[in-house]
Amino acid sequence: MNIEMIRQAASRLDGYARRTPLLNSAFLDDIAGRRVWIKPECLQHTGSFKFRGAWAALSAMDEAARQRGVLAYSSGNHAQGVALAAARHGASAVIVMPSDAPALKIENTKALGAEVVLYDRSRRSEREKLGTAIAEERGLTLVKPFDEPQVIAGQGSTGLEIAEQAAEIGVKKADVLVCCGGGGFTSGIALAVEADAPGLRVRPVEPENFDDMARSLQSGQIERNAKTSGSLCDAIITPSPGQITFPIIQRLCGPGIVVSEDEAMKAVAHAFLRLKLVAEPGGAVALAAALWHQDALEGDDVIVTISGGNVDSDVFARALESP
Amino acid sequence: MNIEMIRQAASRLDGYARRTPLLNSAFLDDIAGRRVWIKPECLQHTGSFKFRGAWAALSAMDEAARQRGVLAYSSGNHAQGVALAAARHGASAVIVMPSDAPALKIENTKALGAEVVLYDRSRRSEREKLGTAIAEERGLTLVKPFDEPQVIAGQGSTGLEIAEQAAEIGVKKADVLVCCGGGGFTSGIALAVEADAPGLRVRPVEPENFDDMARSLQSGQIERNAKTSGSLCDAIITPSPGQITFPIIQRLCGPGIVVSEDEAMKAVAHAFLRLKLVAEPGGAVALAAALWHQDALEGDDVIVTISGGNVDSDVFARALESP
Repeated sequence: MNIEMIRQAASRLDGYARRTPLLNSAFLDDIAGRRVWIKPECLQHTGSFKFRGAWAALSAMDEAARQRGVLAYSSGNHAQGVALAAARHGASAVIVMPSDAPALKIENTKALGAEVVLYDRSRRSEREKLGTAIAEERGLTLVKPFDEPQVIAGQGSTGLEIAEQAAEIGVKKADVLVCCGGGGFTSGIALAVEADAPGLRVRPVEPENFDDMARSLQSGQIERNAKTSGSLCDAIITPSPGQITFPIIQRLCGPGIVVSEDEAMKAVAHAFLRLKLVAEPGGAVALAAALWHQDALEGDDVIVTISGGNVDSDVFARALESP
Repeated sequence: MNIEMIRQAASRLDGYARRTPLLNSAFLDDIAGRRVWIKPECLQHTGSFKFRGAWAALSAMDEAARQRGVLAYSSGNHAQGVALAAARHGASAVIVMPSDAPALKIENTKALGAEVVLYDRSRRSEREKLGTAIAEERGLTLVKPFDEPQVIAGQGSTGLEIAEQAAEIGVKKADVLVCCGGGGFTSGIALAVEADAPGLRVRPVEPENFDDMARSLQSGQIERNAKTSGSLCDAIITPSPGQITFPIIQRLCGPGIVVSEDEAMKAVAHAFLRLKLVAEPGGAVALAAALWHQDALEGDDVIVTISGGNVDSDVFARALESP
């Protein structure tokens, strides 16, 4: 896993992934007590950064394997990313999703042409059995959601853009807050800014009860979450950091930040109000950290990823009611 | 009013207004039966294209007049645009707003540092009296919302970007649907694409009961609306086309398109779902036309402006419930 892989992935993504803008709002700066710069990956194809990693993985496969098709496990954003990347490559995709994933994510994955197989999230072991059986039977290649070098390389392309955009606005030193599940997005961005903007420091942000990365960084070894479901931040509730992602994050990132679910919902409302963006709760944890955990941060500027916007309308409407 | 004024305004806006991206979604293409390209001015500073015109006007004023301050009449988006442009120029702004304007727009205008004076929309004549008295007393310069060359020039900068972005994606011929109130945005974009992308044709889009532009284009003379309030599309309910904007639109634009308020609300829901954008109802009428008035359009591509995203959360939540 190195910066060259990220640069190569970025060049394969050129013309296929969106280069998302860097946005800001004086209203958010006032709350945060520093300048807040938003990298809205909710505007990426399929509504999350996951399309980058999926495209990077699919475009790196050899043609024969790609033609046999791919398989992915996902609660929704990786699912949609893989489904669209596969469809655009003329490949078939099977996505194994928990049955309690947001309805919108399941629907979209199907609409993007993938075959969706549902499993009960509380019986996680079934998932692997199910997926492995299908993959073996059809000769499918597994596209892992985060602990996979090509996927990390694709997500890292976001970091190359952040480095360029930070230079354009004259920001040389800042924390970069990244919504963190298994660490693919976080480690990819960390590697990219290490190379292209060494004054930026990545900080993983997680929701309460799913702070495996923050605890792992503290203890120095991979820690697991007690729960595997039951958060509105469904996009980023993975059981533990990855074997590949964790050492990268340990080497390059500052301490993790943990926000409450209420703060994530309030951040969704602020993204609506001040940025005119639709963020999902899991995609808004970094914004929540910038706005309400300012003592955990350093410097006059903070860069914030909004990792996704695939939220059911009832959850979104509830977020707008949050004070 | 000519293309040179637009180019000059664009260069004064460089570094101050956002160059908004061009977005798309396969889901929207499917509904529309053609490729739909979205120009999201809801992502512009203050949440609408109005910042462009306001900045163009303020930056064109002579310093002494600017220091005395400016005055504007607006239901909200022009208000915020003028408030921010004035604040950034170190000038004071008085904004005369109808008391039934969305609460969010009134609040934001105040938060941006402007002095807000409210009037009763049903007694429109009061508005001019009020504004004129304040302007005379304090020596303020009126910044008109649309029938003003510098304002049209600023809005036209959007059209220069559309022309460039259409060329980048290889679109040479398409209708460009513009959310239309008094016609500043529409006429500015029409002049810009006439010069830089003559295969593009602008079409004004309005909500039912406020279709003064469509009727004026049909009759060949300036027509007025019977009503002056009572639409969720508050951003674009002006009494009649402007004296400057109408002849430009008459010369350059195709026939107007009229959408229902229900269609505008449904378009808000689709922008949420498929683009992760917050559009206000008046800002979503062009998208509604692309999705549900496809017989009125020509060609394989359509370019759609989303003109603003300043919507109160209760209206937005209601839009998300629309089927």
